[in-house]
Amino acid sequence: MIDPEAFLDLANQVTKLKMWPYFDIAHCVMCCLAVREDLGSGSIPFSRKHPIACWLSTMMVVFAGGFLASLFLGEPLLTPFRNTQAVLLATAVWYAMFYSPFDVVYKLSKFLPVKIVIAAMKEVYRCKKVYDGVNHAAKLFPNAWMILFITGLVKGNGAGFIKILERLIRGVWTPTAFEFLQPSFPTKACIVASIIFVLDKKTELISAPHALVYFGIVIFFVYFKLSSLLLGIHDPFIPFENLCCAVFFGGIWDSMQRAVGGGSKSADSTAKNETRATVSH
Amino acid sequence: MIDPEAFLDLANQVTKLKMWPYFDIAHCVMCCLAVREDLGSGSIPFSRKHPIACWLSTMMVVFAGGFLASLFLGEPLLTPFRNTQAVLLATAVWYAMFYSPFDVVYKLSKFLPVKIVIAAMKEVYRCKKVYDGVNHAAKLFPNAWMILFITGLVKGNGAGFIKILERLIRGVWTPTAFEFLQPSFPTKACIVASIIFVLDKKTELISAPHALVYFGIVIFFVYFKLSSLLLGIHDPFIPFENLCCAVFFGGIWDSMQRAVGGGSKSADSTAKNETRATVSH
Amino acid sequence: MIDPEAFLDLANQVTKLKMWPYFDIAHCVMCCLAVREDLGSGSIPFSRKHPIACWLSTMMVVFAGGFLASLFLGEPLLTPFRNTQAVLLATAVWYAMFYSPFDVVYKLSKFLPVKIVIAAMKEVYRCKKVYDGVNHAAKLFPNAWMILFITGLVKGNGAGFIKILERLIRGVWTPTAFEFLQPSFPTKACIVASIIFVLDKKTELISAPHALVYFGIVIFFVYFKLSSLLLGIHDPFIPFENLCCAVFFGGIWDSMQRAVGGGSKSADSTAKNETRATVSH
Repeated sequence: MIDPEAFLDLANQVTKLKMWPYFDIAHCVMCCLAVREDLGSGSIPFSRKHPIACWLSTMMVVFAGGFLASLFLGEPLLTPFRNTQAVLLATAVWYAMFYSPFDVVYKLSKFLPVKIVIAAMKEVYRCKKVYDGVNHAAKLFPNAWMILFITGLVKGNGAGFIKILERLIRGVWTPTAFEFLQPSFPTKACIVASIIFVLDKKTELISAPHALVYFGIVIFFVYFKLSSLLLGIHDPFIPFENLCCAVFFGGIWDSMQRAVGGGSKSADSTAKNETRATVSH
Repeated sequence: MIDPEAFLDLANQVTKLKMWPYFDIAHCVMCCLAVREDLGSGSIPFSRKHPIACWLSTMMVVFAGGFLASLFLGEPLLTPFRNTQAVLLATAVWYAMFYSPFDVVYKLSKFLPVKIVIAAMKEVYRCKKVYDGVNHAAKLFPNAWMILFITGLVKGNGAGFIKILERLIRGVWTPTAFEFLQPSFPTKACIVASIIFVLDKKTELISAPHALVYFGIVIFFVYFKLSSLLLGIHDPFIPFENLCCAVFFGGIWDSMQRAVGGGSKSADSTAKNETRATVSH
Repeated sequence: MIDPEAFLDLANQVTKLKMWPYFDIAHCVMCCLAVREDLGSGSIPFSRKHPIACWLSTMMVVFAGGFLASLFLGEPLLTPFRNTQAVLLATAVWYAMFYSPFDVVYKLSKFLPVKIVIAAMKEVYRCKKVYDGVNHAAKLFPNAWMILFITGLVKGNGAGFIKILERLIRGVWTPTAFEFLQPSFPTKACIVASIIFVLDKKTELISAPHALVYFGIVIFFVYFKLSSLLLGIHDPFIPFENLCCAVFFGGIWDSMQRAVGGGSKSADSTAKNETRATVSH
């Protein structure tokens, strides 16, 4: 059996974990991997032809959360660039990931054991970002719950929301790629984490010690990331979503309507569309 | 005959009309109607498949003026979300409009007598927004007339200017839909109203009592909205525009040029293009 | 021989050159020319059909640097519009350039001797803008070198970075036109100028008197603008870029990789892509 006091102690240590520089590096590496995957087989030629656009789009991904939070909270948009050290670190990682001889850094970061460690570190970093986002917003707008929640969310998964813009920098336009049309797992996880942190901060609903809440979310992030990498489980939220959609977002009423007015043409086509949508989802 | 004093009294009362919550509800209902109309026959399936994107795009429309004004005046972009109550109200209206059993709320709001009342209330609300926008900007930038005017305009018809972005959230990209390419009637009306409020605030040109000016604009907004709903008169500005274009924006000079250099090919084709443009307009 | 003291004196006078209103006019004229050239043969019909969109897109170009710098530094986005006089001047120039009888102002500004003078004045203005941008940012963020550099860059060549948005206002969508994908000469020149001003301001690396540095950049801007207008030399940076790409951005390593693993299919196709890219560049 695990000792509760030791567990709380561990949780406390996780809360105080220093991010700089190792977790920042892991974050930058994951961002570079995302940009390279998004570029596909054209990543090497693109990085040779357009180094500045490549650098800028990588920086957009690395500091996405910071840019969005700055914009939303009325701070200078370039706030993330105030920290010259962080920019230099991100630039160094970007350079190593794109221009290393024989692409050795990229290949190393794709090597599964290495990737697992980096991905796990990135999830710890993500949790910290959500937490910091909620706290930062709470200092500026103590009573605006929506703003707390949104800041936590965009700090945790900024890259998802900035994707359309970041692709535009690379000359690629994907207007149907807005994050909320097909929210990815990190977005959903950040929504949950941000809500929990806001509740923990502003209400008495969560009675667990603060460090435990934080540690729980870290475990939740890391666990599902590793599941996704190792077992291919990509979205454990889908059953809850389907339930939620059925109960709150019209599923039950639509079925009832279909049962009642099944003969009418327009209701029918709506129902069909909806069925198809659910299937394709 | 109407008693001038009673009329002024009425105007004063209109000036002090409390917006919260009934006029806010009317505004939200009109915004939801606009989103549903924009989605067309796909509105129900879309709201079932993408509830978050649907909510976000509706919020964008509801708080469009606030978002734009915050951005333009250097306030936090999320300022409209500081008012949690307003967000909850808008969310409740959105939920009722999209997910009510048998779509009853939507159908009710489309019922002509109800729609007329809501539309009229929304126009009163719009006038208040333009007025508040001009005053808010005047506090921050007392001498920047352009900023006063622009703030009033975007507060009054923010949804028009944000349309491209709001559609992008729903995965629809319409790059030729920028408001000023084909300004709608509300945009033109807000331009006029904003100019009048700026003149009333910063100059002595308008000698009428302030309440009368405000009341006059309310009547103007409501009158033309009802004309549009009941009589199908969509744009009473067109004759003035045509006159203005002819006098100031090259109409007369172009005609003269055509008369003088009619034989030259390039002038001819320009003239033809312009004629076609005027016709298609 | 030129007298060093007289030269320094001249440099000092250039540093203190008053921009308002003649250099501002030259800037506005060049911006209007750029908009008209971007509209191509459709500029006259467009200006007749959509005067407001035409005005707005011209203002976007004229105040592009101001808008971007305001956004980046957390100032109100409409800051450039605080100066009503500057807006009026820009509006007057826009009106003269688009709606003058028989297009006489436009034709005059395209007349080579006039164009050379205006273009040279615009380059002097550009240098001043870069300098002011760096200094303004330095007041707000004394130690954030990146922000100083970026502010200088966007103040100097804002129109390039805002082009996509400005075209969108005119209903034209060119997602592959992001400036950094094919940086134009003014962008590259502003990068160099901004770096030099930042180094001059924050380090002891540049020992020349400040006025000389400024004067040197003015001469560099004007000289290459005139080369471009008169001799057709459009980009003197290309040799340096090719060298830099070969040394730092993978050129040498890629060649080595090709030499080593020339037989492997994937490396080959990468190499081919890259060769094609270099050629098309």
